[in-house]
Amino acid sequence: MRPTFGTFDEAWAERLVGSRPRRGIDGFLGIVVTEVQPGRLVAEMDVTKDVITVMGTMHGGCLSAMCDHVLGVVMYPVMQPGYWAATTEFKINLLAPVTTGVCRATSEIVAMSKRMAVVRIEIENEGRLVALAQGTCTIVAPKAGPASRAE
Amino acid sequence: MRPTFGTFDEAWAERLVGSRPRRGIDGFLGIVVTEVQPGRLVAEMDVTKDVITVMGTMHGGCLSAMCDHVLGVVMYPVMQPGYWAATTEFKINLLAPVTTGVCRATSEIVAMSKRMAVVRIEIENEGRLVALAQGTCTIVAPKAGPASRAE
Amino acid sequence: MRPTFGTFDEAWAERLVGSRPRRGIDGFLGIVVTEVQPGRLVAEMDVTKDVITVMGTMHGGCLSAMCDHVLGVVMYPVMQPGYWAATTEFKINLLAPVTTGVCRATSEIVAMSKRMAVVRIEIENEGRLVALAQGTCTIVAPKAGPASRAE
Amino acid sequence: MRPTFGTFDEAWAERLVGSRPRRGIDGFLGIVVTEVQPGRLVAEMDVTKDVITVMGTMHGGCLSAMCDHVLGVVMYPVMQPGYWAATTEFKINLLAPVTTGVCRATSEIVAMSKRMAVVRIEIENEGRLVALAQGTCTIVAPKAGPASRAE
Repeated sequence: MRPTFGTFDEAWAERLVGSRPRRGIDGFLGIVVTEVQPGRLVAEMDVTKDVITVMGTMHGGCLSAMCDHVLGVVMYPVMQPGYWAATTEFKINLLAPVTTGVCRATSEIVAMSKRMAVVRIEIENEGRLVALAQGTCTIVAPKAGPASRAE
Repeated sequence: MRPTFGTFDEAWAERLVGSRPRRGIDGFLGIVVTEVQPGRLVAEMDVTKDVITVMGTMHGGCLSAMCDHVLGVVMYPVMQPGYWAATTEFKINLLAPVTTGVCRATSEIVAMSKRMAVVRIEIENEGRLVALAQGTCTIVAPKAGPASRAE
Repeated sequence: MRPTFGTFDEAWAERLVGSRPRRGIDGFLGIVVTEVQPGRLVAEMDVTKDVITVMGTMHGGCLSAMCDHVLGVVMYPVMQPGYWAATTEFKINLLAPVTTGVCRATSEIVAMSKRMAVVRIEIENEGRLVALAQGTCTIVAPKAGPASRAE
Repeated sequence: MRPTFGTFDEAWAERLVGSRPRRGIDGFLGIVVTEVQPGRLVAEMDVTKDVITVMGTMHGGCLSAMCDHVLGVVMYPVMQPGYWAATTEFKINLLAPVTTGVCRATSEIVAMSKRMAVVRIEIENEGRLVALAQGTCTIVAPKAGPASRAE
């Protein structure tokens, strides 16, 4: 009961894997994609001292931002070229404090139509589930213009 | 139909306002608290080029992380000393792309019991609402032990 | 920072107020609209013994269904004729058990574009807030065809 | 990375399967549990003409109420006797209109501690996924007193 995907841009998927963002919030967090399949993506981030608060645990905003990130990124390989995925909403449950190790997020498209997709994310750390999320991406078609005039 | 608050730590509130985090995800984002009242807090972050993606808009993860941050911070002035607020879940709707200016988040406790609180957040940017969130904080009592024996 | 509404169908609003559904889940629950303004609607349901579980409290599904109902109904007076509002997602926090009296839901459109709206709902009972929800309606245009050719 | 369950009350599970509620919102909807395993429950409801709106589709509130129902019911066989599961919040995505057939909900506990559990629900109808939900149950201990003195 999972969607099938008419498009899978393997070149895009290959470019995603292993590339290390140098800037932006994903750069600050050091989020690196480690696996991409049609409708499924895995990414990791190290829990460095930069993200630990005075309480001694990782700031929850890091898991929220990681969810937001992988929720959109999983969409690109299965959309037609030029399309854009805008996260319009998501909900996250934070299950346990994180203090060390690696956070590993698995993002899976569980439903997809022409205009939107629903994505679920699980993040694990040190052998435990630490966050669960569910959200919606709106799929935005390329703007009409010289590049898309032939459509 | 809003809660009243038996505790309001004015010294804590005063310390919060204007302090600029130097590290952590709130430091990266430059989130600064600008107002604190019982059960209500306002914070701002500048939209710098560091948070703009290749699409030309701010990464949604910045708004998610900001929500997560103000959801917890609004709790501290209205809790007894030593208590801890853990965000256990929230849901965010991202309403419009952000490209410049200041994001201003208003966080309000809309319900509160001994063990948990429900908080709503609105973020505006350039005169428009750009994000709306609703979530839950679990209120954690200080651990029994020498440090809290005097209570 | 709330939306303004280009359309407000007063005749529709007047028909909504006071009409008692005879069937469907809104009929089972006895949900009656009591006020309609542009972007805002109030509805009530009595807490009858039919909705009390063996635990002695109202089944949470009644509040969930009430939220779902008022989330869509608030949209109709502010949409062009023939348009349809489909609730695509919402999140609800259940704050306190309900055992008696009247549940009164206030539904407010907090953001609206051509294609979607974000709505917030508060339900009170016996002087307390018992549920808070936030969700999205997708606005569906009438299908092109003989029936809508006159527009 | 799913929880294991120290308790599984097989007698309770057996009583749940096949019992047809006569009243309440679950009675109105005709929700019948068809399978129970530790941390997993399946339930069905027929799409009768009573739940179809004037738009010709099932009222979304029926899926919301079904989610709320199975979110709590899946908890009982894996809790100690006398404990109570209160749904404190959930989020639902409604994916496709329902017009006929059977709605089949699968409810799964994906994380569980002493005090709370996070549950995910999928509802399918006519071979399609029509709703996805994620929510939290608070686990409430029996009140101290004569009835629970033996513990």
